[in-house]
Amino acid sequence: MIKIAPSILSANFAKLGEEVKEVEAAGAELIHIDVMDGHFVPNITMGPIVVEALRPITDLPLDVHLMIENPDAYIEQFAKAGADLISVHVEACRHLHRTIQLIRSFGVKPGVVLNPHTPIESIQHILEDVDFVLFMTVNPGFGGQKFIESVVPKIAALSKIIKERNLNVEIEIDGGITAQTIGVCAKAGATMFVAGSAIYNQENRANALQQIKAAGLAAIQ
Amino acid sequence: MIKIAPSILSANFAKLGEEVKEVEAAGAELIHIDVMDGHFVPNITMGPIVVEALRPITDLPLDVHLMIENPDAYIEQFAKAGADLISVHVEACRHLHRTIQLIRSFGVKPGVVLNPHTPIESIQHILEDVDFVLFMTVNPGFGGQKFIESVVPKIAALSKIIKERNLNVEIEIDGGITAQTIGVCAKAGATMFVAGSAIYNQENRANALQQIKAAGLAAIQ
Amino acid sequence: MIKIAPSILSANFAKLGEEVKEVEAAGAELIHIDVMDGHFVPNITMGPIVVEALRPITDLPLDVHLMIENPDAYIEQFAKAGADLISVHVEACRHLHRTIQLIRSFGVKPGVVLNPHTPIESIQHILEDVDFVLFMTVNPGFGGQKFIESVVPKIAALSKIIKERNLNVEIEIDGGITAQTIGVCAKAGATMFVAGSAIYNQENRANALQQIKAAGLAAIQ
Amino acid sequence: MIKIAPSILSANFAKLGEEVKEVEAAGAELIHIDVMDGHFVPNITMGPIVVEALRPITDLPLDVHLMIENPDAYIEQFAKAGADLISVHVEACRHLHRTIQLIRSFGVKPGVVLNPHTPIESIQHILEDVDFVLFMTVNPGFGGQKFIESVVPKIAALSKIIKERNLNVEIEIDGGITAQTIGVCAKAGATMFVAGSAIYNQENRANALQQIKAAGLAAIQ
Amino acid sequence: MIKIAPSILSANFAKLGEEVKEVEAAGAELIHIDVMDGHFVPNITMGPIVVEALRPITDLPLDVHLMIENPDAYIEQFAKAGADLISVHVEACRHLHRTIQLIRSFGVKPGVVLNPHTPIESIQHILEDVDFVLFMTVNPGFGGQKFIESVVPKIAALSKIIKERNLNVEIEIDGGITAQTIGVCAKAGATMFVAGSAIYNQENRANALQQIKAAGLAAIQ
Amino acid sequence: MIKIAPSILSANFAKLGEEVKEVEAAGAELIHIDVMDGHFVPNITMGPIVVEALRPITDLPLDVHLMIENPDAYIEQFAKAGADLISVHVEACRHLHRTIQLIRSFGVKPGVVLNPHTPIESIQHILEDVDFVLFMTVNPGFGGQKFIESVVPKIAALSKIIKERNLNVEIEIDGGITAQTIGVCAKAGATMFVAGSAIYNQENRANALQQIKAAGLAAIQ
Repeated sequence: MIKIAPSILSANFAKLGEEVKEVEAAGAELIHIDVMDGHFVPNITMGPIVVEALRPITDLPLDVHLMIENPDAYIEQFAKAGADLISVHVEACRHLHRTIQLIRSFGVKPGVVLNPHTPIESIQHILEDVDFVLFMTVNPGFGGQKFIESVVPKIAALSKIIKERNLNVEIEIDGGITAQTIGVCAKAGATMFVAGSAIYNQENRANALQQIKAAGLAAIQ
Repeated sequence: MIKIAPSILSANFAKLGEEVKEVEAAGAELIHIDVMDGHFVPNITMGPIVVEALRPITDLPLDVHLMIENPDAYIEQFAKAGADLISVHVEACRHLHRTIQLIRSFGVKPGVVLNPHTPIESIQHILEDVDFVLFMTVNPGFGGQKFIESVVPKIAALSKIIKERNLNVEIEIDGGITAQTIGVCAKAGATMFVAGSAIYNQENRANALQQIKAAGLAAIQ
Repeated sequence: MIKIAPSILSANFAKLGEEVKEVEAAGAELIHIDVMDGHFVPNITMGPIVVEALRPITDLPLDVHLMIENPDAYIEQFAKAGADLISVHVEACRHLHRTIQLIRSFGVKPGVVLNPHTPIESIQHILEDVDFVLFMTVNPGFGGQKFIESVVPKIAALSKIIKERNLNVEIEIDGGITAQTIGVCAKAGATMFVAGSAIYNQENRANALQQIKAAGLAAIQ
Repeated sequence: MIKIAPSILSANFAKLGEEVKEVEAAGAELIHIDVMDGHFVPNITMGPIVVEALRPITDLPLDVHLMIENPDAYIEQFAKAGADLISVHVEACRHLHRTIQLIRSFGVKPGVVLNPHTPIESIQHILEDVDFVLFMTVNPGFGGQKFIESVVPKIAALSKIIKERNLNVEIEIDGGITAQTIGVCAKAGATMFVAGSAIYNQENRANALQQIKAAGLAAIQ
Repeated sequence: MIKIAPSILSANFAKLGEEVKEVEAAGAELIHIDVMDGHFVPNITMGPIVVEALRPITDLPLDVHLMIENPDAYIEQFAKAGADLISVHVEACRHLHRTIQLIRSFGVKPGVVLNPHTPIESIQHILEDVDFVLFMTVNPGFGGQKFIESVVPKIAALSKIIKERNLNVEIEIDGGITAQTIGVCAKAGATMFVAGSAIYNQENRANALQQIKAAGLAAIQ
Repeated sequence: MIKIAPSILSANFAKLGEEVKEVEAAGAELIHIDVMDGHFVPNITMGPIVVEALRPITDLPLDVHLMIENPDAYIEQFAKAGADLISVHVEACRHLHRTIQLIRSFGVKPGVVLNPHTPIESIQHILEDVDFVLFMTVNPGFGGQKFIESVVPKIAALSKIIKERNLNVEIEIDGGITAQTIGVCAKAGATMFVAGSAIYNQENRANALQQIKAAGLAAIQ
């Protein structure tokens, strides 16, 4: 299965509602919301107010990716604003087990995110507790980066562990996903894919989304 | 003169463009943009992406209020996104003179902001360098606060200093501004007023805005 | 009026209950609890658990002095543990007005503390909102310091302001208070006095406490 | 061998001396002292003053667990106050080798602590230098957590490494230890067990302590 | 009296000894050493190792200006390396009184530094304890700044206070000092002047230094 | 091959140019520059100004080792000052992949550094992107430490991985390197060796350098 999660970071913030409805109609399975605080990453983007505004607009799950320090302080706000999934960076969480429990306590699906260089050893003891693992294939918060291919073996390695331990954990990929890069990730075991400019910067967004999805599906057949 | 700056923090983030056009049509003189990073204040709101999206929507000056730590790192981004005014907190700036210079170097009007308890002594040596001083009349980033009346004497005191030193510095007020509270601030010398829920949460926003402005004007006649 | 607040930092932590009862019997009016986090000051001392344990032991007001960063995060815990007064450092509070409101929201008397070099200008706009101001006459968290006499004029200056503005604000002094130093502070307008080793390190603690109080009373007659 | 280390965090802080003597008489082998600074964990508890007060009360080793940032700054104080063991979190120590050396330089036994999600790979190069490894089976500093069973395989894995490398390193467990949970940890190779409310919140504390120890011994026979 | 303190930040670091001897021969009264840590200011420059190397080279007082966070941690190192004067920023010192005491405890003359916007109210209670006050007339750590003339009234105001209170405190100026700018500062009461590129970037450094000094002397005759 | 990189931290800072030329003449292959910010490590040493001064002095590659927090902020300065190699600590880099890319973007060879206890698992996904890995064999920034022998197996393990993955990555060692310790590291696969006091504190520095190199070469023959 291949699920596409358009990132609204690439959408027009003057008409977010429309932008979200457009990708929903085009076949998106999730809406990806990139929260940056200017401290964990060198950019500031959006907060709970955006989740709250989009909640009545769409039935798609809102997939909130927290690129922030001290996420514990903001999880309740995002949950109450309407998040369906919340993911936190292992690099930002000294008490990761507790943070994941806190997300779940609000009925939200918890995920854990790894920067491109972070090894999967760092999350091996939290896999029973999360619903998904998000691999960054660019460094979050920096502009103009390309898909980092050296992350693919990590995806494959985690996928193998998930099967061996018979866990119910999905793999999501974020960074440079296009019709060209989705295949190798899907083959390695990923099923959820964030796409930003590859959808929102295209003339025909529905086509763009469908082509990415098709490329993903083709790779796993 | 009384200028009203609706804060989009109270607007509907699913259709920000419309929300901004509505208050522009209703007679707003500036659009106030509350940037919070979850570190200087306990909330995360929005970043340069919002300024960039609103720039083509309106001709009104975009009045960016940075409630963030280390504002120097983000001033260029906000300036390039289209900010006309950028204000920074004296409590967040160890090198305030330099920060103000940096804002001006991008052709943007610099302002300095004071929290409710911060004395005006702290900004006395920067008055020659700023275009405006913003007084908080609530604590920024916390919900459910009321207009703090004890700030009014500070406004009057600064207004007196500005006249005595013959400076070209405007005074802006943010926090709990309504038709009931604007008068006392206008009388004390303020000319720019941020209003959030007092405009955006009202049935008839144009009326609400005009009534606030009228109350301000009445107070200074 | 002269109120003595023995600091349990100088008491025997193996039998705090007894130590507190002893000074209560000796005529103490408050119990002073020095909370240090090893970040705002270079020492770690005690937390809410101590307040909770002493609450059923004594009827005296528990006077909790927070020498910690980010006090907002711990005020609820100390209030629920049984604090009657909570004071925070102006040097630690960027949103001081909000912090004071938070303390009061739990039915606790709020105070604001100034380090020896901090000018009273920094608290002039919060005086309406606090029940007391605590002047440090040593630097908190460092050992072996003597009473800093140059703080006395600050006490007198604030006392004058309190009278002029007709406020209901008491002044407390902490640091090097003995029968020799209390007089000059009492004359300057202070009414609450923290004493640590000057009581707890003495053979006859009741005598020591009474002598300090007597010296304070003598000074204001 | 099974050693029980009652945590005084669950004791009555008004009469710590008695509380410690009671568990010593009941067969405790160590006294566990939980130091929290409100920064590494969201709670503030106690500092060197408590170690100093308990030192003359008991002959049991004082087992100081530092849940603090920058532990290097406080190790000397705790050592001089009378600590016999000091453990630090690998998540808090950028220069772990140096920190362990510093503890040992004061004649104190050094230990290293792992949060529930932290992998043992992170301490593989410090095992020659420590006297014990402490596994957290709850997240430290948060209330109301249950024993996290997924830590048990980590205990077993480390125990195996210790044997293979023929090291003289003990394993201590902290978090949710009761007569029900001690067995699985003891079987996995742990020999030191922290117990807080499971002892101090019980009517008959001696019985409670002995039952926990008995359950541990039973598991390894 | 006019004392010139060449800043070695503008000297050639490949031959610091020669560079220092040259300005000593040219009539410098102090050697100014700018310590930046990349945190208090956005530049990293030099540490105690430089003080130690210059100590045997010159008999001039070494005037160490700490533009660093947490200066308490480094004062002993700089004192033992041979500093004669150490100054710290009021903006970096929460426990300023203690920091000044610490400097003096090593037999070093303590000074306090103010950034261009910082008011002299902030140091009014430490004047009895310092040997000198250093006014920044540029923002430290940033390149390409010009002498900020609005600092001059602060110099005059402090000079007046020093006379009124009959204190033994000198005033030093750092930032953009040349033969053109020294006069106004000297007239306002300053006696020590840091000069960097105005000396070290000149063909004839001795002439440059003497001209600056002459301009200072001329202004106060 | 064995390359010796004398660390100028042990040289005489009053005549750095001479000190560098002396070791160049003696056969050094690199000049090692230890940058410490007083935050990542407890010492402040030197910044870009030193690199800039040495650039015209020597043709040897300048090997800049950043023991600083937030290295991204300073990489451009060091690159423009003339660095040929820049290494950053994995413990200081949350976005390591990006930091390495940034170094390379300036035409500088990037390296990654590991503290003595840090496992090589933490850098397994960055090996394709770096030119060298630097193993600390003492804790950086602390004085009086000895070569930590337990690091040697890490060197050997990484060396094996480099060969297996056929990577072009060199291994550098820093800390306690002498003629006695170089051999075991060279055998384990290291080719670059930092030596400080073992060269600069010796009567005959050229001899000292050559003996260390000879010992390294002997070990791998």
